[in-house]
Amino acid sequence: MSGNIIGERFTVVTFGESHGKCVGVVVDGCPAGLEISEEDIQHDLDLRKPGQSIVTTLRKETDSVEIMSGVFKGFTTGAPIMMLVRNEDKDSRSYDLIMDTPRPGHADLVARQKYGGFNDYRGGGRFSGRITASFVMAGAIAKKLLKETLGIEIVAYALEIGGIRAENFTIDDARKNRYQNEVRAPQPEVAERMKTKVIETREKGDSLGGIVECVALNVPVGLGEPVFASLDSDIARITLSIPAVKGIEFGSGFSSATATGKQNNDEYLYKDGRVVTKTNNSGGILGGLSNGMPIQYRTVFKPASSIASKQTTVSLSQSKEVELVVPGRHDPTVVPRAVPVLESTTAIVLADHAIRAGLIPPVLKTQGD
Amino acid sequence: MSGNIIGERFTVVTFGESHGKCVGVVVDGCPAGLEISEEDIQHDLDLRKPGQSIVTTLRKETDSVEIMSGVFKGFTTGAPIMMLVRNEDKDSRSYDLIMDTPRPGHADLVARQKYGGFNDYRGGGRFSGRITASFVMAGAIAKKLLKETLGIEIVAYALEIGGIRAENFTIDDARKNRYQNEVRAPQPEVAERMKTKVIETREKGDSLGGIVECVALNVPVGLGEPVFASLDSDIARITLSIPAVKGIEFGSGFSSATATGKQNNDEYLYKDGRVVTKTNNSGGILGGLSNGMPIQYRTVFKPASSIASKQTTVSLSQSKEVELVVPGRHDPTVVPRAVPVLESTTAIVLADHAIRAGLIPPVLKTQGD
Amino acid sequence: MSGNIIGERFTVVTFGESHGKCVGVVVDGCPAGLEISEEDIQHDLDLRKPGQSIVTTLRKETDSVEIMSGVFKGFTTGAPIMMLVRNEDKDSRSYDLIMDTPRPGHADLVARQKYGGFNDYRGGGRFSGRITASFVMAGAIAKKLLKETLGIEIVAYALEIGGIRAENFTIDDARKNRYQNEVRAPQPEVAERMKTKVIETREKGDSLGGIVECVALNVPVGLGEPVFASLDSDIARITLSIPAVKGIEFGSGFSSATATGKQNNDEYLYKDGRVVTKTNNSGGILGGLSNGMPIQYRTVFKPASSIASKQTTVSLSQSKEVELVVPGRHDPTVVPRAVPVLESTTAIVLADHAIRAGLIPPVLKTQGD
Amino acid sequence: MSGNIIGERFTVVTFGESHGKCVGVVVDGCPAGLEISEEDIQHDLDLRKPGQSIVTTLRKETDSVEIMSGVFKGFTTGAPIMMLVRNEDKDSRSYDLIMDTPRPGHADLVARQKYGGFNDYRGGGRFSGRITASFVMAGAIAKKLLKETLGIEIVAYALEIGGIRAENFTIDDARKNRYQNEVRAPQPEVAERMKTKVIETREKGDSLGGIVECVALNVPVGLGEPVFASLDSDIARITLSIPAVKGIEFGSGFSSATATGKQNNDEYLYKDGRVVTKTNNSGGILGGLSNGMPIQYRTVFKPASSIASKQTTVSLSQSKEVELVVPGRHDPTVVPRAVPVLESTTAIVLADHAIRAGLIPPVLKTQGD
Repeated sequence: MSGNIIGERFTVVTFGESHGKCVGVVVDGCPAGLEISEEDIQHDLDLRKPGQSIVTTLRKETDSVEIMSGVFKGFTTGAPIMMLVRNEDKDSRSYDLIMDTPRPGHADLVARQKYGGFNDYRGGGRFSGRITASFVMAGAIAKKLLKETLGIEIVAYALEIGGIRAENFTIDDARKNRYQNEVRAPQPEVAERMKTKVIETREKGDSLGGIVECVALNVPVGLGEPVFASLDSDIARITLSIPAVKGIEFGSGFSSATATGKQNNDEYLYKDGRVVTKTNNSGGILGGLSNGMPIQYRTVFKPASSIASKQTTVSLSQSKEVELVVPGRHDPTVVPRAVPVLESTTAIVLADHAIRAGLIPPVLKTQGD
Repeated sequence: MSGNIIGERFTVVTFGESHGKCVGVVVDGCPAGLEISEEDIQHDLDLRKPGQSIVTTLRKETDSVEIMSGVFKGFTTGAPIMMLVRNEDKDSRSYDLIMDTPRPGHADLVARQKYGGFNDYRGGGRFSGRITASFVMAGAIAKKLLKETLGIEIVAYALEIGGIRAENFTIDDARKNRYQNEVRAPQPEVAERMKTKVIETREKGDSLGGIVECVALNVPVGLGEPVFASLDSDIARITLSIPAVKGIEFGSGFSSATATGKQNNDEYLYKDGRVVTKTNNSGGILGGLSNGMPIQYRTVFKPASSIASKQTTVSLSQSKEVELVVPGRHDPTVVPRAVPVLESTTAIVLADHAIRAGLIPPVLKTQGD
Repeated sequence: MSGNIIGERFTVVTFGESHGKCVGVVVDGCPAGLEISEEDIQHDLDLRKPGQSIVTTLRKETDSVEIMSGVFKGFTTGAPIMMLVRNEDKDSRSYDLIMDTPRPGHADLVARQKYGGFNDYRGGGRFSGRITASFVMAGAIAKKLLKETLGIEIVAYALEIGGIRAENFTIDDARKNRYQNEVRAPQPEVAERMKTKVIETREKGDSLGGIVECVALNVPVGLGEPVFASLDSDIARITLSIPAVKGIEFGSGFSSATATGKQNNDEYLYKDGRVVTKTNNSGGILGGLSNGMPIQYRTVFKPASSIASKQTTVSLSQSKEVELVVPGRHDPTVVPRAVPVLESTTAIVLADHAIRAGLIPPVLKTQGD
Repeated sequence: MSGNIIGERFTVVTFGESHGKCVGVVVDGCPAGLEISEEDIQHDLDLRKPGQSIVTTLRKETDSVEIMSGVFKGFTTGAPIMMLVRNEDKDSRSYDLIMDTPRPGHADLVARQKYGGFNDYRGGGRFSGRITASFVMAGAIAKKLLKETLGIEIVAYALEIGGIRAENFTIDDARKNRYQNEVRAPQPEVAERMKTKVIETREKGDSLGGIVECVALNVPVGLGEPVFASLDSDIARITLSIPAVKGIEFGSGFSSATATGKQNNDEYLYKDGRVVTKTNNSGGILGGLSNGMPIQYRTVFKPASSIASKQTTVSLSQSKEVELVVPGRHDPTVVPRAVPVLESTTAIVLADHAIRAGLIPPVLKTQGD
């Protein structure tokens, strides 16, 4: 399959560009009989949309979703669901300049090289963070499907921004607080410190990276298909598809490099008659399969590439080095907006694997039941 | 597709179990006209085979590859290439015990749960590190294909074992040294220290984790297909398919969480008339596409799960917690053997994407040319 | 992949329902640098749109295509191309009745059973012939791509309608005449006879089947991937996806059942220094590969299922047999409208295989060349 | 995916050549817990193996299957099942000649052209009918899976050979008789006539084509995924992958071209409280979905290409036309051996779709139940 398609049974197809007519998605394989409305999708879209606060870009986009197919009388039909949001508030004037002087840290140059210069470069085109609106639309359906059939809940949050890291919090803190603050932190006080740091950095014409942690609760045992569609493989794949992601780690992750087997192995014990592990260093995935413990992974986002500072780049027309200050309005950090995106991508993978494992049927119920 | 298949155009299908008759692989889509012999495959297999030294398991396996199809008169034919190694030196006696008392850190329990107890549990079955022999067989073909058509070279090495980390070395050091020492380190002196640490840990009945770094040189610009088959997505996917991997990071990776955009952006400049970047914090991948700089990523391996120390687990038949000392012979760290595996998986992904990008044709030459 | 997706490299994703908001398609994998406009797509859509003449349905649909992504400054960008036509002139009043009394020959009942009653049944929903507008939109791009890169031309025509069969015509006759008459016949005189037959049958409240023949010229040698993606396999697959198709045959097809090897084998000879076959009983495909001769196959369409005559069906609510006269406006034969559809599906398969075979590159040229 | 792979959930990967070391198959995605033995596979292989009687080739092949992975203690494990038969009785001496003078009706020339001359041409290599042994091995598992879970039974038979067509027989006749006679006819008396015709034709150095009909009983409603993975699409695809097949038709098939809607529509009625159709002109498939009636389709096989008569071909080395008598031993008709192959391919498709539809779970039972 070509590259804009993912998922074997809950299949997601994305399309659209940053400054084109729309960004959108087709979900093929969603079971029939799921109650879904544009409001459901809009709710999740609103969590990622720009213009929310000082910490994100000042562009205003309404990002109103339209469900164009696959839903009838308020329920999914089993047919492909196409959804889109139209692009508004586009200012593409500066991008012709940028084609000649590619922005450091952006895909401008490599896209031009790959596509012979035919790519839609406006606003980063297909390489813009805006395409993650597609992920969120598809993810909204996946989240609802998982919630209603298996009780799965997915909670992501900004674990770290600009070196400020949340600590000593529970998943309940995160669930309760993350969308109550502008940076999507699991604790209000950390949120404040992160926000201050973001504003300071923005004022310096610079940007920040960070880490988003994502936890999935109530995931049944056995999701994942060895060896190449292991659950961590598929989560890693879709996560690295998100612009600005540079790494992912599950459970104890990179810290397990310095642990020993004794320290890192999760011993088994009985709890309420059920076998669980004492610790969760595996991040809920063993042998590529969910083991019934919470799925837990962290994703690192590089500092936003567009900064309001002078950088060295090349002028392709003049074949020489030049200075560039990237015009336009930018997110000083992508972390807050990435939080709902990661919940969405996780949901997409889990929905696909739950269907593959036979845990969600192709038809949820019979009309009238 | 079911889970044991990966790659759109250079497609790899794995099969086999640790203590079954064989482990093997089908490569479908390899271009016709590549000269290949069992010796080529064997060379790479020998780099990962156990019994090499004190740092790995004492099991002896000859791991002799047989090419069963797809090669004729010394060249690939364009037909699927099936290769296998037969399993020898199997001692499966202890594994019935283990089915009742699953080993912490292993997939024993989750595999039993997923497959209703029908899985071949001997030696970890399908979840054994032994299945990576399949990756190496397929990778040997991919490496030769990449080398001969595009001059791509892939160099992996043990960057860190048990907290001992290689520093101040060049890629040439790594290329020269990694297979000259038992731990696959890029420098002899680091290798000695890692080896000492491994032996000490083994004597304590414990095991070590570590980090493998992988670099691919001479990769042309533009490999990768946005958004879901971006180059980092596909590398991440196959990497997380390797047993014991818990994370991956590209370029500056997790350290970019604390960098700013100014620090992390790779500025452009001209070098020998060609646009390159001053730094390589991106790890050679921008927007999911190779940008012509070396591909560079790191993978963390958790400490080997099988340790010769007492651990708490459960007896499923008795529904109670018990103590377990895992019997058998174990690798105190999987890192040395993982080094050729990562070169192989990287090659598989690059070969697939080079074909997708039209940079390697379906037929390399015409017979007789 | 889920079922609404086809093609490995030139990937087509369809969506939309007969009486929903739209029918549409995403083409992922189209090479960059192909000049394409809405007029190009519209031209082909107009060849299949209803309301053209007495022989097809009286519904009026403007079927105006909108290209929503993937085309920039008049050229394909390499990004997914989403196109849609909005549905107009929908009269869905009669379809609630039909859900209770399923129409013989239609998918009403089986769709209801498969999807638990959640399917959009209006106008046949996803099972309507209207979805072939998606095929035509994607096919218009494929046809242009094939024409401009390889000079491939595809010519389909109504070979037979209601027992009236065209004979003694050349491919040039078909190319010249088929879109000059309402039934898409290769000869004007046959077209007249077919048309008369169609009108007569319509007046009797009945409908007709027929056969469409499709020929592809200038197809290079070697398209197709044994064994399961052989060229005939992939043509057959997409052809049987067209509503009302009940069979396909290549070259001498079913008549080869009564031939002998001597009669049926296509002997080789030299013509203008090139090896060709004396006859083309193979229909241009040998061993699943194009052999350089014209690709030739025939597809049978059953008589249109919706007829203005009384038929026996069941009332599901009353659990008894009842009489039904299907309300609404119907095509007395689908053959004329199927002609451009088959050209489109053939083009989709050939484009996919030409890319797979490395005969069409991922980027056709460099901007500015 | 590359071309030797088919099936989304019950995935079949074939490999091997006619005169190479083996032909084989990997089945990935077979549910765990199916009891299977080499005897089960061998039984089906024996139905297609050559040397059975005067009507097929005189080559002797034992075709002993070896299950190499995926089965443990007599049950499928959920891991990929690799099976192979080693090639014996190979006489490849004549094939160097044939590479220069390609056999009419064979893929010799086109394979050489596609693969740059690197293809294994001995015995037709990858284009030999021998590769259908792979289909039969995979199909044997699919058949058992379908039988044990859903009670599906598949019955194919030689409907017509050399113009002699079976008539006035029931599916029970076919079930009982087909493997009791050498030509796989549904009736003994027709079998005798077909056999006589085959022997006569063989003596003339010629060959015969024919038609195999395939019926699947007890198929549940709703198998198939619109639009491109409709049940007829997927059956057509795999059927056209079988060497020598030139067409397929479902239900009334090509004869529906001359029927009217009134004649061809299958009216609904109640029978034993269940909705059925009065006739089965649809061949059990409506809108691409199984409708609960028997699946019924016919496949045409061209006359075997290898004949012991002089034919005109070209000498590629001499660039001129020459006469060729194909050396070796040949089937005068492929129809008898194709019968078990079609049962196998049908089973593969139905197993895949039954899993997709959630009607067969990934694990059939729990060990010990």
